[in-house]
Amino acid sequence: MNPRIKQVYKELNKLKLDGLILSHEPNISYLTNTRSRDAYLLVSKQKNIYITDSRYTTEAKKNLKGCTLLEIKGSVFKTIADACKKLHFNRVGFEERYLPFAEYNKIREGWDYGIELIPTHGIVEELRQIKTAEEIAKIRKAIEIAIAAFRFIQGYITPGRKEIEVAAELEHFIRYNGAYASSFDIIVASGPNSSYPHHLTSERKIKAGEPVLIDAGVDYLGFKSDLTRVFFSGKINSSARRIYDIVLAAQKRAISRIKPGVEISEVDAASRQYIAKKGFGRYFSHSLGHGIGLEVHEAPHISGKEKSLLKAGMVFTVEPAIYLPGRFGIRLEDICLVTRKGAEVISVTLDK
Amino acid sequence: MNPRIKQVYKELNKLKLDGLILSHEPNISYLTNTRSRDAYLLVSKQKNIYITDSRYTTEAKKNLKGCTLLEIKGSVFKTIADACKKLHFNRVGFEERYLPFAEYNKIREGWDYGIELIPTHGIVEELRQIKTAEEIAKIRKAIEIAIAAFRFIQGYITPGRKEIEVAAELEHFIRYNGAYASSFDIIVASGPNSSYPHHLTSERKIKAGEPVLIDAGVDYLGFKSDLTRVFFSGKINSSARRIYDIVLAAQKRAISRIKPGVEISEVDAASRQYIAKKGFGRYFSHSLGHGIGLEVHEAPHISGKEKSLLKAGMVFTVEPAIYLPGRFGIRLEDICLVTRKGAEVISVTLDK
Repeated sequence: MNPRIKQVYKELNKLKLDGLILSHEPNISYLTNTRSRDAYLLVSKQKNIYITDSRYTTEAKKNLKGCTLLEIKGSVFKTIADACKKLHFNRVGFEERYLPFAEYNKIREGWDYGIELIPTHGIVEELRQIKTAEEIAKIRKAIEIAIAAFRFIQGYITPGRKEIEVAAELEHFIRYNGAYASSFDIIVASGPNSSYPHHLTSERKIKAGEPVLIDAGVDYLGFKSDLTRVFFSGKINSSARRIYDIVLAAQKRAISRIKPGVEISEVDAASRQYIAKKGFGRYFSHSLGHGIGLEVHEAPHISGKEKSLLKAGMVFTVEPAIYLPGRFGIRLEDICLVTRKGAEVISVTLDK
Repeated sequence: MNPRIKQVYKELNKLKLDGLILSHEPNISYLTNTRSRDAYLLVSKQKNIYITDSRYTTEAKKNLKGCTLLEIKGSVFKTIADACKKLHFNRVGFEERYLPFAEYNKIREGWDYGIELIPTHGIVEELRQIKTAEEIAKIRKAIEIAIAAFRFIQGYITPGRKEIEVAAELEHFIRYNGAYASSFDIIVASGPNSSYPHHLTSERKIKAGEPVLIDAGVDYLGFKSDLTRVFFSGKINSSARRIYDIVLAAQKRAISRIKPGVEISEVDAASRQYIAKKGFGRYFSHSLGHGIGLEVHEAPHISGKEKSLLKAGMVFTVEPAIYLPGRFGIRLEDICLVTRKGAEVISVTLDK
C-alpha cells in the first residue's frame, strides 16, 4: 500500500471519517504519484477510486497504481455521490479550501439518505510539507534548470529590448533544457515596473542603467522552482546599490535563523526587523516566503503570523524585498531546504 | 455608470439582493474593464468596492474607474464581511461556482447578525457571452497572432525534433509578435500521443510521416484564442487522410448550422451524427466546443445537452475530433462568431 495514502487513513481515523473526497489536483497528484488533471480522488480503507473523464482514462489506466479507475458518465458529482453510497459511507470528508460551494451542494444532493459531508483542512498539504529525497531531487533539478536560464538571460538584458522578449527567451531556453515549461507567468519588470511586486510583463523597453527584476521558475516533472534576481543593464546607481545591499543582508539574516524547531514567524521577523531598522519597513509589504513543491505556493507560509515550527525536509522560498513606489523595487528570492542542522540554500550557486 | 455593472444591478433587483460578492477573476476583469488579479469585487447600488492587497493597490488606483478601492489589512474575508455590514446589507449574493466552501463560511462568520449569503449562478458569465465590437476586435487580434504562429511553426515540424521544442518555438514567436503569452499550455502531440485529447507535451521526437497535433492560442490584452491543426512531417498516409476528411466534413456541417435562434445542441449534433454515420461515433468523446473570450473556456458550452439558443455576438470554438486509441487522433478547431445571418469563421485564413 502507498505509504502516503496510509498516512491519510490515519487522519481519517482521527476524524472518524469513512472516506475523503479530494478535488485539489496537486493533492491528488501527490497521493497517486501521477500528474493528475481534471480528476477527483475518493480515499477510503475499502477502496481508493480515481474519478476522471474519457479524455484522461487511457493515460490514467497506464499510470495509476493501487486505485480503481472510474470514468465519469454524465455528472461528475453524481458519480462521486454514487461511489460513496455504494461503499455505505456515513461520514465523508472533503477539502473545504478547494471545493466550490456549488460542488459541495451537488454532491450532497446526490445522496438520498443522510451521509454527512464534513469539511477538512490541509490533511494532504500537511504531509506534502516534508519532502522525500526523491522530491528534493526533482526540486533540485527544477532549480538547476532555472539557474541555467538566469545565467543565459543576462546576455539579453540590454537597453532597447522589451520585457516580453526577455520572457520569451527565458521560456524558450527552459523548454530546450529539460523542463516542461515555466512554473508561473515569468515576471520581467524593468525600471519603475519593478516597484510592483507582481508586475505583468509588458512591451516596455529596458533603459540603460535601470534595474530589471526577473522572477521565474520551471516545472520539472511536476515539481516547481521559483527564483528572483535583479539585473542592471550597465552601471548600478548608488541608491539602487544601497537598497540591494539591505535586501541581501536581510535575506542572510533570515536564512541564518533557519533550523528545525524554530518558529516560522522568527524567520520572517529576522528579515523584516532588519529592513525596518534601515528605515524601509513599510516598503516590504508581503510575507517572507512560501513552501514550494508540486505547487509554486504551498505550505508552509513563511509569514510573521505563522506559529508552527520548522521541520527538516521543508523546502521554501526566502524573498525579502523593498519596493519604492514609482521608482524601483529590489527582491531577492532563493529556495532553502531545512536540514537537520540548519538550512541548505539549494539555489546558492546563482550569483547575487 | 459602467453599463456592465448596470446590467448586474438589474439582476440583483430580480433576485432581491442588496449586493453581490464577486470572486472569479475574469468576471471582475469584465466588470471593471481592468486586468484583475487576486481581487474581490463587491457590487451594489450604493457603492462598488474593489478589494485587493498591497501588491496590487498602486496598479489598481491607476486603472480603476467607478469603484472604491479597499486595501485588505488582515483577513480578506473579514474585510468583505465588514464592507457588507457597513452598507447595511440584508441579502448578499455570491458566485457559487467559484467561492470555495471555506471562504463562504469565513464570510458568514464575519457577520454578527443575520445577513443572508445567497448563492447565485452565472450572472456575469451570461453577460460575457455576447461580445462587444471592442471585445471581438481583441479576440480577432488574438486569433491573428495565433494563425501567424501556426504558419511559422510548420518549418519546425520535422523528424527528430522534440514536441517540447516545437512548443518552445511557438511560445517564443507568440511573445515576439504582440501577445502576452500563450493562453494555455500548448499541446504538441506527435504520432500516438495525438490520440490523447489532452496530451501533455513531452520530450518525444517526431517521426517521419506521422501526424502532429498542435493546440495553441494566445492571450492578447486579456482576450484568448484557441486553435487546433494537425500537421504531417512528410506524406500523409491514407488512413489518416480518411479520418482527417471526416473530421473536416463534420466541422463544416456544424458551422453551417450556426445562426441566431438555433438550439446549441443542434450544432453539436451536426458534427456528431456525421462522425457516427461514418462509424467513428465512439471516438469523438468530448463536446463540440466552448465559448471563448476573457477565458479560454467560458459560456456557452457547445454540447449536445445545451438547450439554449445561439445569439448574435457569441464567439466559440468548433472542434470535432476522432481519437483512435494508441494510433493517432485528428482534431480541427476554429473560432466562430455568430453574426446576424449565420457564422463568421474568424480563423478562416488558417489552412486546413
